[in-house]
Amino acid sequence: MAGTNSDRLASMNTAVTAADVARTIEHTLLRPEATAEQVDQLCRETLELGFHGACVNPCYVRRAAELLGRCVSPAGRAPVVVCPVGFPLGANLAATKADEARRAIDDGAREFDMVAPIGALIAGDRDLASRDILAVAEVVHSALPGGVLKVILETAVLTEAQIILACRCAAEGEADFVKTSTGFHPAGGATVGHVRLLHRYASPIKVKASGGIRTAATALAMLEAGAARIGTSSGAAIVAELAGGAR
Amino acid sequence: MAGTNSDRLASMNTAVTAADVARTIEHTLLRPEATAEQVDQLCRETLELGFHGACVNPCYVRRAAELLGRCVSPAGRAPVVVCPVGFPLGANLAATKADEARRAIDDGAREFDMVAPIGALIAGDRDLASRDILAVAEVVHSALPGGVLKVILETAVLTEAQIILACRCAAEGEADFVKTSTGFHPAGGATVGHVRLLHRYASPIKVKASGGIRTAATALAMLEAGAARIGTSSGAAIVAELAGGAR
Repeated sequence: MAGTNSDRLASMNTAVTAADVARTIEHTLLRPEATAEQVDQLCRETLELGFHGACVNPCYVRRAAELLGRCVSPAGRAPVVVCPVGFPLGANLAATKADEARRAIDDGAREFDMVAPIGALIAGDRDLASRDILAVAEVVHSALPGGVLKVILETAVLTEAQIILACRCAAEGEADFVKTSTGFHPAGGATVGHVRLLHRYASPIKVKASGGIRTAATALAMLEAGAARIGTSSGAAIVAELAGGAR
Repeated sequence: MAGTNSDRLASMNTAVTAADVARTIEHTLLRPEATAEQVDQLCRETLELGFHGACVNPCYVRRAAELLGRCVSPAGRAPVVVCPVGFPLGANLAATKADEARRAIDDGAREFDMVAPIGALIAGDRDLASRDILAVAEVVHSALPGGVLKVILETAVLTEAQIILACRCAAEGEADFVKTSTGFHPAGGATVGHVRLLHRYASPIKVKASGGIRTAATALAMLEAGAARIGTSSGAAIVAELAGGAR
């Protein structure tokens, strides 16, 4: 298994190392029963393993930002705090999502994973969906130079046509990323097929794959399919697997 | 099965009819992929079947309030709109929850099902949990005479000691109800044992049972255990089952 991953790493166009993969990972802890102590542990791992950032719920953003802001990871940069917005249903008012993003900016978050209004996407209401995304984008981009907005589409419950519509809405809504899944929907998480579809229709908007990514093989497959970021709670295991295979 | 339910109805202390059970039901549609059209259907059923109210996500509260506000159900009263707050993780900032409730009041909601800060309950942080609840209670009770605040505890992930602590926090937070479950957590929904526990420790605060209640037998068992309200997306089937048994 480790040999296979090593082969896959070698076969990718660029010379990808375990550290390269780590830099794409957003180390994620969003379970509602997560405690402050577990958030601290997540932040320590984020620093030690050189992840791009730590993704924690709004009530823990200030705590994570204080922990991560003090340090520089082995990758030579401070990891960012990623905050979900309107998570995981996306069925809040746009104004509530915008407020939640504003408060997370004040607390130290630098990237924002908002959930799209999924019912509107399914109903084909392009206007409503685009405006919902734009309401959050305006907060993120005006209040925070370099702030990054990702839009979670919950691709497992959308048809291909709805996913393509969602990519248009993400562009009209001035998002920086589209993201496959919340990881909370029983219909499932990211698939390679959906990542390819997003990469094709959302470009130049980037793609974050998330939901059910638990092995190095899956993470590499997502990157090969066009993902620029991986959201996972299994980042430590994935990097360990890759480092083992590369030795 | 219908005979059994009829027997159970007859055996309850008070003379409970199918209409009585309907009046305890909050007809619920919270799936993120729910469309406006499905919300309209939910409201029609709420009116026709004499449910206590319709529970819809914040983005649909105004629509549901406009539909339900125009009519009076066969039960002789207008059903209320119930709005989830900080749903379903409860891991938002208290200020965001309070804002979400404030906006839902403006849109016409009359009852509010907020999710408690579950991580704080697990960590035993009574102060933080009570203040979180109180922040929403102050909005609901000051801006809306007769407004009802329910606190969802997600009992399936709590120990008995944590549930008892949560009941104290609900009292300190001036909630009107404690509610078992969001219906979204993989650990499961309401159990008769948890409803009994809440009834015992939260009283005089009332109990709403929710999550996985799909049959008349389960609904009756929850009422017998002390629930004053039932949250379910299977209300139509439950009432049909009871009416069939009572004929």
